[in-house]
Amino acid sequence: MSEPVRIRLSDVAAEAGVSLATASKALNGTGRMTDQTRDRVKQAADRLGFRPNAMARALIRQRSMTVGLLTNDSYGRFTMPVMAGVAAALVDEGISVFMCNIEDDAQAGRLHLDAMLDKQVDGIILTGKRIDTALPVDLEGLSIPVVHVFTKAPPDTVSLVSDDAQGAGEAVRWIAGLGRQRLAHVTGPADFASVAERARAFAEVAGPDAPVLHGPWSEAWGHEAVDRLWRGGGTVPDGIFCGNDQIARGVIDALRERGVDVPGDVSVVGFDNWDIVAAATRPPLTSVDMNLKALGREAGRLIRALAEGQPVAPGLRRMPCRLVVRRSCGGGET
Amino acid sequence: MSEPVRIRLSDVAAEAGVSLATASKALNGTGRMTDQTRDRVKQAADRLGFRPNAMARALIRQRSMTVGLLTNDSYGRFTMPVMAGVAAALVDEGISVFMCNIEDDAQAGRLHLDAMLDKQVDGIILTGKRIDTALPVDLEGLSIPVVHVFTKAPPDTVSLVSDDAQGAGEAVRWIAGLGRQRLAHVTGPADFASVAERARAFAEVAGPDAPVLHGPWSEAWGHEAVDRLWRGGGTVPDGIFCGNDQIARGVIDALRERGVDVPGDVSVVGFDNWDIVAAATRPPLTSVDMNLKALGREAGRLIRALAEGQPVAPGLRRMPCRLVVRRSCGGGET
Repeated sequence: MSEPVRIRLSDVAAEAGVSLATASKALNGTGRMTDQTRDRVKQAADRLGFRPNAMARALIRQRSMTVGLLTNDSYGRFTMPVMAGVAAALVDEGISVFMCNIEDDAQAGRLHLDAMLDKQVDGIILTGKRIDTALPVDLEGLSIPVVHVFTKAPPDTVSLVSDDAQGAGEAVRWIAGLGRQRLAHVTGPADFASVAERARAFAEVAGPDAPVLHGPWSEAWGHEAVDRLWRGGGTVPDGIFCGNDQIARGVIDALRERGVDVPGDVSVVGFDNWDIVAAATRPPLTSVDMNLKALGREAGRLIRALAEGQPVAPGLRRMPCRLVVRRSCGGGET
Repeated sequence: MSEPVRIRLSDVAAEAGVSLATASKALNGTGRMTDQTRDRVKQAADRLGFRPNAMARALIRQRSMTVGLLTNDSYGRFTMPVMAGVAAALVDEGISVFMCNIEDDAQAGRLHLDAMLDKQVDGIILTGKRIDTALPVDLEGLSIPVVHVFTKAPPDTVSLVSDDAQGAGEAVRWIAGLGRQRLAHVTGPADFASVAERARAFAEVAGPDAPVLHGPWSEAWGHEAVDRLWRGGGTVPDGIFCGNDQIARGVIDALRERGVDVPGDVSVVGFDNWDIVAAATRPPLTSVDMNLKALGREAGRLIRALAEGQPVAPGLRRMPCRLVVRRSCGGGET
């Protein structure tokens, strides 16, 4: 209750009826605008009691108020939520995020990185589509900060990934906690680092003998995996943890078509919480959400801290996933 | 065979082992680089016989080699392919595309547009997620060119959309051409302009009495629509044109679960050709592709022509869709 209200630059901008960029320039005596506009912003700042801290002022004064985001994720599945998080962390400070897609092409990577440096971005965020593959961009000798998100990064850099092991562990413990005892894991290709981490976490809860089936990241593989697991006629699983939502959807469709009830006979969990798949699955899918927007928000906070000269320890940060409970396991809400 | 090989700036850059931006600056006597580098680029250009035309040189000399793309499509479903097309049209000329998501927020729109203008982008492309809603960005008095793609635009601007009526017409004629005579249209909410255009095109082929059912853009609606069409026990359709791929997937799943064979008893077509849905549908879905990448490529070509001062007629351009034939109608390939 007694927490003081923090007045942000965006409040001043709204009060003065100008854009954030104009407000920041007005308060710093830069930019082109009429004296009237500048005065209006200053009066608004006074009225609201706006006091930017020293670092924020330094940032506003010395920087171009832009962060560049380079990605190779042409689909946008991972990058769009990360970018939304970065933008959410920075928009109130009047900082824009510019995204360029380099399409896994080293020459395009150089072109776009050069263009961003030409425009004097205050920092670069690199974001990809898997954590074990680096983007083809040479960042040697850059004088501005870099943050890596959901991509492979050199060990001495600031890097953020989702915690696959923790997310997978929560999912498998959730199924086990519902009384399921014969667990199986149907997942993606074995050469993905995330696949290995999720499988390790699965084995820790389900035991070393619980089956792990690798295949493509597709619904069709979910169908095929159910065929394999049920073909023998012996013991069948009562809980299946899937490596992504598409596989889980295939698994659930295949089980329904065999007359196996989900969640009555078998609990199924996915990974990604990709709404287009998870919400349309029948029944809707319980799934691990990688919190990509939160990852982006933290990346935005870190790139800003680095740009302000604050100390930020290098190294890999694993950010927690969360389990989103729908109806495919039973025992839950919704 | 006798077509002369066109030497592009990217060839010169590759030959000299420098980035496109460096190559363009070297040839124009701008930018910071060693004399050695500049000479190396010039020699590479001579060796390859590189002759940029006058307009390209003017563009390179006067411009910042950057195009800004503003979108409100947080999912990236429409914007990512458009952006890939824009980039494909411009990357060989050493022009980068910077994308900003304004999230339907007028204040964010102003911030990001201001940031792009600060960076002196050569043009702005606006792209959205439906053709009857404008982005909340005020472009009054801009001194750089603007192209609208897949969003509502004022009539005196350069604007590109996909030709919904043509795409829908092709889809319905395709089903009719396979001998289907009792056609139905299951589509999205009636207040979408694209829904009205697709429905009009459907009625032109199927006749004014053929049923058109409106509902949400979801698989669940596809299920419900099949329930309604089959409930009465009277005449049922033998061809269903769906307003998007998710609805089509719901329709096909619902038919299979009723024991109705697709494509044996009923042909089904979707709209969007969204691979994640269309390829996973069983059988895989014949669908109308809006050619969003081609739309983006044309937008890139137009924004460059405008930036170069070439005459470009204002007005709405409707770009053709194409039907991608899979197995859900029968009579086709794969």
